[in-house]
Order: sequence, then structure tokens, then C-alpha cells
Amino acid sequence: MRNIKLVLAYDGNAYHGFQRQANAMTIQQLVEERLQKIFGHPLTINGSARTDAGVHAYYQVVNFFTQGTIPAERIPLAAKGILPDDIVVVAATEETAEFHARCSAKSKIYRYRLVNTRIANPFERNYAWHFPLPLDVSLMHEAAQAVVGTHDFSAFRATGGAPVSPVRTIMAAQCRSTDNSLIEFEFWGTGFLYHMVRNLVGTLVQVGQRRLTPAGFAAILKGLDRHAAGMTAPAQGLYLVDVKY
Amino acid sequence: MRNIKLVLAYDGNAYHGFQRQANAMTIQQLVEERLQKIFGHPLTINGSARTDAGVHAYYQVVNFFTQGTIPAERIPLAAKGILPDDIVVVAATEETAEFHARCSAKSKIYRYRLVNTRIANPFERNYAWHFPLPLDVSLMHEAAQAVVGTHDFSAFRATGGAPVSPVRTIMAAQCRSTDNSLIEFEFWGTGFLYHMVRNLVGTLVQVGQRRLTPAGFAAILKGLDRHAAGMTAPAQGLYLVDVKY
Repeated sequence: MRNIKLVLAYDGNAYHGFQRQANAMTIQQLVEERLQKIFGHPLTINGSARTDAGVHAYYQVVNFFTQGTIPAERIPLAAKGILPDDIVVVAATEETAEFHARCSAKSKIYRYRLVNTRIANPFERNYAWHFPLPLDVSLMHEAAQAVVGTHDFSAFRATGGAPVSPVRTIMAAQCRSTDNSLIEFEFWGTGFLYHMVRNLVGTLVQVGQRRLTPAGFAAILKGLDRHAAGMTAPAQGLYLVDVKY
Repeated sequence: MRNIKLVLAYDGNAYHGFQRQANAMTIQQLVEERLQKIFGHPLTINGSARTDAGVHAYYQVVNFFTQGTIPAERIPLAAKGILPDDIVVVAATEETAEFHARCSAKSKIYRYRLVNTRIANPFERNYAWHFPLPLDVSLMHEAAQAVVGTHDFSAFRATGGAPVSPVRTIMAAQCRSTDNSLIEFEFWGTGFLYHMVRNLVGTLVQVGQRRLTPAGFAAILKGLDRHAAGMTAPAQGLYLVDVKY
């Protein structure tokens, strides 16, 4: 059996997230069904991360086992013919049997895009959070540094998530403005809790509005209380942009 | 009666073009129906240009007459509440009675976006032409200079268009690559024939592939024969980006 690793890019708008669900179309189900046509047998893909409904990926990694003989380097173009154009196979390689997209992942990077203009940009409506009030980018960047390190992220965890450890390690966090209107947050970490990035962004925006100080943001992290943190930023601004092995 | 000028930005994907049609939803119809709610009476908007189905605008200008009393500067935010989020009123001003969005326009600028990568970008599928073969940007820029000046553009005119003069004046034409994968064409002219920009781009791409020389491109323009020119580039790459008065 060959172990194939794919890098996928997808626009998440039309899907109910990555992971298979009973009654809604997901990235996983669609990719599995279509790849079956190339490989000639049913297959199951392991994703490096779940992405929620409406969340995007520039770099989602999956792997699967197959007896199919198509050379890995030909998979991207073969997949182009059978996948809808909002899901693209960017790269394909053959890995050793031990490789697992989720379990082998050492770290991931998520990016969150926010358009900070009074009037919305119609081309960004599905690809960023439109936030019309002024935001202080350097203050948000300063506050974001509090998450670097190993912390209990209970304050930024979705209520009702599966019972896993709330401790995660973040290697880097930044907030930058690439032009006058686009603000990008980026978090590089070993793992992320359900809704963690969107909850961090929703709270950092309070700092950007000067409704919360960087010290107040750090205190919320330490306080472990989800109710003290801000809103969950909308899904359409979030992108999985890298997975490192 | 007040004469109101609006600058609209819209994502054209969901509409059958700008101009009203009997049996399909267009930008014009939707904007007229929704603005009626702000101004309290039926109204008709004049657009600076028709845009085809799937064509976008960063800067489409319309005007209309109203007895409504809302201050012009409050229209963008009032419109935000009643328009779908793929159509945005970017600016509104009150003009003298003589102003007409189409007839008063002195020139317009169209941009055409092309993504030149072997593997498609799923986020660009509705916003650019994905062209997977190598293209020589400087050769396309050189060829495009042939259209600058006043010419009979019959070679780049859609067959079956309305019987108007095929002579138009182009002040500037360029093809540039803003990064390794995105190629942008821009045409600044007093007016454009139906499908003219898309036909120019479809033919310039032949130059970029070295299937046609810049001199051959100039000869097609001089030849006035639509059949000698290339394909009509797909609608989703085209943007109306400026109208000058």
C-alpha cells in the first residue's frame, strides 16, 4: 500500500467544514468521493486539522493509503479534472507508512484576515471580517505577545468542545497591517483548541479599539474564564496557511 | 429634484450583468428596487457603462433623480442596510442637474486580472482568468501599445453588437505582473465596444504564448476582421475600475 500526502487549498464557503458529517457536505466527504475515481477504490483521508464551516485553507495536509498506481506528481492535474474549482490539490508526494497528516504534524500556522474600512469591500465579504471602526494594530500586536509560550487556553476555548487538554504552545503571534485597510493576525503553534484563533482575534479587536489594555488581555488569558474574553470572530476570515512536519 | 451620483463596487458573479433584463436579476434592477426603500419612490439609475454577466466593478458610477431628503453623505451607510453584501455604495454626492453618469463620462479604465500558475488558486476562480501556460508579460505589454490612439476596433468587437461606430480612442494600455503569478492588463479609453477588452486580452495572450508577434497583433487591429483575433477572455477577470468626468 502507498501512503499519499496531499496539500489542499480550498475556499470553505460552500462547505460545512472539513470533517465528515451525517447530513451536510464537507471537504473531507467530497475529496474522498472524487479521489475514488482516480484511485479505483474507496478511501479515507486524514486531515491535519478540522476547519469549521466557512473557514479556508491555503495549505491543508491530508494523507491516505491506496493501491492505485498513478505517480504522485500526476495527482494534482488528475484531481483538477474531478474536483470542483473551489478545492485544489496543490501538491502530492509519496510518504513512508508512518506518516499521518494529523499525528505527524509538529506545528500549524493560522492566519486571520480583517478588512478595517468604514465601507465594506464586496470582494472580501467571504474572505475577511469587515470591521468598520478604527483599530490600533501595534497595540493588538503588543497584546498578542501574551499568548506566546505554553499556556492553558481555557479562556479562548469554545464552550462545549470535546474534553481535551486546554494547554497549547504558541511559538509566535503577530498582528500586522499590510496596507491601510487589511489587517492580518498570524498564530504559529503546536496545536489549537476549537475556535481558539477566532476567540483570540475577537478579543484582540477589543484591544485594538482601546476597550481593553494589553495587560487586561493577558489577565483574561490567565483567568481561564471564557466569559471574560471577547466574541468569536467570524469564520470567513480564518485560513489554515501552513502545517510543519 | 436632486441629482444623486453614486459610486458602486460590486462582485458581478451572482448577476446577469448591470443592465436591466426581462427575466434575470441584474445590478441595475436590484439597486433600483432597494434604493426605492431609502428614497420613498420608484427611481431609475443611469450607469456609466454596462458590465456583462460575471464582470465586476470597483468603481461603477450611476446617477438618479430624487425628491428624497437624505443627505448624500449618509447614503453609503443607509444603503449598507438594504443592499446585499456583494454590492456596496462606496460614495455618494449631489450633482448639478446636467450630470449624467454615462453621457458626462470623459473616460473609463478597465482592468483584467489573469492568474498565471500551473495549479489554479481556488480563491481566484471567480475573480481572475486562470491561464496555466507560461506567458511573456513584456511581450504582451509591447503588443498592447498598438491600441493606443484612435482606431477602428472592429477586429476586437463582439459579433452581433448594436450598430455603433467602431472607432474608439485609447489613451493608455499596459500589461504588468504584480507578482510571479498575477498578471494585470489595464486599458484607459474614452469608450469601449461590447467585449472589446476581453477580446483584446484573449488576443494578447496569444502574443504572451509567442503564437503571435506584437507586429502580428498590430496587423490584426488594422485588418478589422474579428475572425483574425483571439478568443474572448472569460468575464470573471474583468473589472471596471475608474470613470473620469
